Amino acid sequence: MRLATLLCCFLFAIAIPAGATTIDHLEPASWWVGMKHHRVELMVHGDGIAATTPRLQRAGVTIVDVQQATNPNYLFVTVDVAGNAKPGAFDIEFVEHGKVVAKHPWRLDARAPGSAQRHGFDDRDAIYLITPDRFANADPRNDSVAGMKEAANRSDAFGRHGGDLAGIRQHLDYIAGLGFTQAWITPVLENDQPKQSYHGYAITDLYHVDPRFGSNGDYRALSQEARARGVGLIMDVVLNHIGSGHWWMRDLPSSDWINNGGKFFHTNHRRTTIQDPHAAAADRRTFVEGWFGPDMPDLNQRNPHLARYLIQNTLWWIEYAGLSGIREDTFGYADTQFVSDWGKAVMDEYPHFAMVGEEWSTNPAIVAHWQRGKVNPDGHVPYMTSMMDFPIHTALRSALLQPETQWESGWVPLYETLSNDFLYPDPDRLVIFAENHDTTRLLAQVDGDIGLWKIAMAYIATMRGVPQFYYGSEVLLRGPKERNDGQLRADMPGGWAGDAANAFTGAGLSSAQRDAQDYVRKLFQWRKRTPVVQTGKLTHFAPEGPVYVYVRHDGAHAVMVALNKGDTGKVIALDRFADFVKVGDHARDVLGEKDVQLGATLSLPAKSETILELR
Amino acid sequence: MRLATLLCCFLFAIAIPAGATTIDHLEPASWWVGMKHHRVELMVHGDGIAATTPRLQRAGVTIVDVQQATNPNYLFVTVDVAGNAKPGAFDIEFVEHGKVVAKHPWRLDARAPGSAQRHGFDDRDAIYLITPDRFANADPRNDSVAGMKEAANRSDAFGRHGGDLAGIRQHLDYIAGLGFTQAWITPVLENDQPKQSYHGYAITDLYHVDPRFGSNGDYRALSQEARARGVGLIMDVVLNHIGSGHWWMRDLPSSDWINNGGKFFHTNHRRTTIQDPHAAAADRRTFVEGWFGPDMPDLNQRNPHLARYLIQNTLWWIEYAGLSGIREDTFGYADTQFVSDWGKAVMDEYPHFAMVGEEWSTNPAIVAHWQRGKVNPDGHVPYMTSMMDFPIHTALRSALLQPETQWESGWVPLYETLSNDFLYPDPDRLVIFAENHDTTRLLAQVDGDIGLWKIAMAYIATMRGVPQFYYGSEVLLRGPKERNDGQLRADMPGGWAGDAANAFTGAGLSSAQRDAQDYVRKLFQWRKRTPVVQTGKLTHFAPEGPVYVYVRHDGAHAVMVALNKGDTGKVIALDRFADFVKVGDHARDVLGEKDVQLGATLSLPAKSETILELR
Repeated sequence: MRLATLLCCFLFAIAIPAGATTIDHLEPASWWVGMKHHRVELMVHGDGIAATTPRLQRAGVTIVDVQQATNPNYLFVTVDVAGNAKPGAFDIEFVEHGKVVAKHPWRLDARAPGSAQRHGFDDRDAIYLITPDRFANADPRNDSVAGMKEAANRSDAFGRHGGDLAGIRQHLDYIAGLGFTQAWITPVLENDQPKQSYHGYAITDLYHVDPRFGSNGDYRALSQEARARGVGLIMDVVLNHIGSGHWWMRDLPSSDWINNGGKFFHTNHRRTTIQDPHAAAADRRTFVEGWFGPDMPDLNQRNPHLARYLIQNTLWWIEYAGLSGIREDTFGYADTQFVSDWGKAVMDEYPHFAMVGEEWSTNPAIVAHWQRGKVNPDGHVPYMTSMMDFPIHTALRSALLQPETQWESGWVPLYETLSNDFLYPDPDRLVIFAENHDTTRLLAQVDGDIGLWKIAMAYIATMRGVPQFYYGSEVLLRGPKERNDGQLRADMPGGWAGDAANAFTGAGLSSAQRDAQDYVRKLFQWRKRTPVVQTGKLTHFAPEGPVYVYVRHDGAHAVMVALNKGDTGKVIALDRFADFVKVGDHARDVLGEKDVQLGATLSLPAKSETILELR
Repeated sequence: MRLATLLCCFLFAIAIPAGATTIDHLEPASWWVGMKHHRVELMVHGDGIAATTPRLQRAGVTIVDVQQATNPNYLFVTVDVAGNAKPGAFDIEFVEHGKVVAKHPWRLDARAPGSAQRHGFDDRDAIYLITPDRFANADPRNDSVAGMKEAANRSDAFGRHGGDLAGIRQHLDYIAGLGFTQAWITPVLENDQPKQSYHGYAITDLYHVDPRFGSNGDYRALSQEARARGVGLIMDVVLNHIGSGHWWMRDLPSSDWINNGGKFFHTNHRRTTIQDPHAAAADRRTFVEGWFGPDMPDLNQRNPHLARYLIQNTLWWIEYAGLSGIREDTFGYADTQFVSDWGKAVMDEYPHFAMVGEEWSTNPAIVAHWQRGKVNPDGHVPYMTSMMDFPIHTALRSALLQPETQWESGWVPLYETLSNDFLYPDPDRLVIFAENHDTTRLLAQVDGDIGLWKIAMAYIATMRGVPQFYYGSEVLLRGPKERNDGQLRADMPGGWAGDAANAFTGAGLSSAQRDAQDYVRKLFQWRKRTPVVQTGKLTHFAPEGPVYVYVRHDGAHAVMVALNKGDTGKVIALDRFADFVKVGDHARDVLGEKDVQLGATLSLPAKSETILELR
């Protein structure tokens, strides 16, 4: 036992000469020359590695610090990479009693041109969200991988179905053809967990793509091929927790690496404790330090080595894969100071980058707390350019189903939720969505009502913010009305050989599916070529009955959107919108694909969305 | 016709000598020496008064400006009152062609000692809200007043019932005895309207108490007598509108005095348009400039004369009646810049004063916009020390009725609403209430469930903020479950001669009524003598099932409140509250009126409120 040997060394001072040591992990395994973050703390894991002294010989590369953890199998080696260091591979050696007992290759790469100045996604973009296990299975050979805990089983809604990165690469033209300019793919890193590993949120290796999805190289190639089609890649990052199968769990660096001393206890999900000036300290602790479940150990980012590890891990993937954005999971659950430090490090490195956080709250004041530029009473300094707009998501879904009353339009909760935009430093960068991989699909929510579904899609495509669409809804994937993750993340038709229908080719789709797909394509292709609907100022009018009207405008151009969610047609007088239209104006009916001349009124069919390019 | 004469004068230059002119109004009719606001703009109304030149002879008093309105029957005379002017009465004369055609007495008073430094209500107070027509009729002679449009009719729920200021004066000991330290009386100024004049919100003379309530002097005496019993007087001020019977409406100073050119059009009640960065300008205009109803002409406070009139009117009443606070009606509906100017003027004059605004929104971000100290993105600078806490009001009422679910405590919406306190610059000065004169009574809301009602009263009495209680609930006035203003503002038993029961003496009350009254008295008397529950810091614990626990504490003292709204008793472990209690601690059970020693658990009976003074 190396551990025994080492304890022995500690007890009796240097006595027994060490033999060869195996390094299991040295992370990150590479870095880049010219990063702002040029002091890289390497985590080295190997039996008794703490007893060794690391060394390297490479011009411009210096070991500037070495720290031990309480577990002698870990060493934290800080390497400084000078701006004039040369890219290339070299070894880091580990010496004990004058002998090299281990060595490990390390590599410096040249940065891609313009890497630091890359532009992250913003409101000029539209995001296509993919659950990679469920999108397309282009390589059936990797559906199950020897030695990994879970094999493919497509008949299990919560099992792995075999979708992979190759499948996404195959269909990049399809995604771009729908009008989307960004792909957010839920986590692809290794999830070597015994069950439900398909969802990706129980990561067991933060530096490797799950082999059942492909390789790191496949992920990078996907990013490059997507970019060539005008589609950026948004990585789904999980800072709050890991999977219980993570190799750390077999040999923790220190007892404080995992919250609650590594033992499971449930988070209380009381996210308001972060902002609430009255929250009990114990409740706040339980929120942040509690776990989602026994299979997801909760990381203690107050440990500075872990904090550095996570920050570097994010920088590594951005640089390695050429990402255009990060989606950060379960945002508020991570340590509050850490998420600020992490965000600052990323935005310092990539000042024009974009990151969107998931804070599943219907309260805009809670969500706004995390957006860059927000001045918070508790002093928290946020760095997220974007947040997921859960308040609008929730209000949109309920507004669609809300009946009109004698006094009140059913749209009012949505209209009033949007009015809270004064709470956000930058509402235009919120990501708006009708559904995602954690919610029921909208079509189920509206009981299959395509009219309401189209209204929602039009809203998402024309409202302020960055629209996000969930794969498969364009061919009317529906799923259950009560949340059931496995089922709502159903397989994309045509993603598997032998599928009866094929969303990518159109073969076997019903006419309703084709119609929906054409609609989504028309909507988002039009958005893609219409700057005013991406970045124009928004003016909305208080809803009246089933009708909600708003305008995107930038002085030169204006687009009016009129939504009628009622069961009957409505005729609305246009004089209320006199700041934007007048009788006799010519306009383009975008969805009707025809030019029209405006009269004093506008007819809105039952359950319809009318989009008029006014000038 | 004086008007014809005057037009004639304008057309033909000074030609016809003027006769005597009657001055109908000169307002304010007095001012005080030593006010910060020492330049007083007098509104003078009289047939053709604009053709005259005002003059006065009084040491330290100077006319510094005279302005005409478009209506020649108005003159705005600005008088400067020097700090060394002597109190006393004198005349202001109006001269035309060298002759005094009218004169009107004016008066300067000495300020009460400490007037400028008076302290407004704050969280050390508890407010008793009274609808004066419905509280007590001590003077039946003024129930109907000759020449006024509406006579008393106690059988009409929406009619005048005869309650008066004398009735309140008679029962000040009762109010103080219940433990209240402030009385908010809904408007008492003249409402000479043909119907529903009892509520007071359609004011027809801003400088005179309605004779059916009493006189200005009665109001001042009420204030003085209340103060002598430790009860401050809060005046209900209406800046947004007047009654259609206001004398202005018969001869408007200018066409822009009333919004929409003096013609009725409905407000859209879209209060979010004020803060909403996307709101259509037309909607914002309709909100602010629209009327509540045809009987309530909406004031255009953008007219600078009107703005000054309203500001001076508020200052006048504070100084005249010795007020300890203002409650401002329908706050957001008035012109946004004006309410800032008005608030600033009042707080400049009385830096320790208190004013509470009514913004009937469930959204704390909307309410917070108006509280002094809030930095708003739209640049609006608010001056209200307090706002009515409608978000808590609404959440409390729904939480009481919300069932527990498997996952979620029914208290959560209340707990989460309170978490928004980070939005307010000063949550401790919000006025919290379970009900008021515009809502159904809580007892109706909870279907007569006294257990839930007591929990709510305990919450209001112990939560952060300034509690406000509605008259009559202490003897279980209930009213209808659907809002019906006339009925929810029912007569206080014993306020009318011959009433079968008498809340003031206890005669004829049912045992349930006596129990409720004793409960309210015990609660608020205890609050009155317990500083930590008034001003202590609040820490609340995430609700679990039917139980919600919070603590008020200030280092030296702590009070724990444990509410169980469930149908069965609960035993809760105290270790969760270890920051405040430990096993073996002695505590005082406030409602049980006994000393207890704490064990590891605490038993909470079904539908109960437990208040423990811990130290």
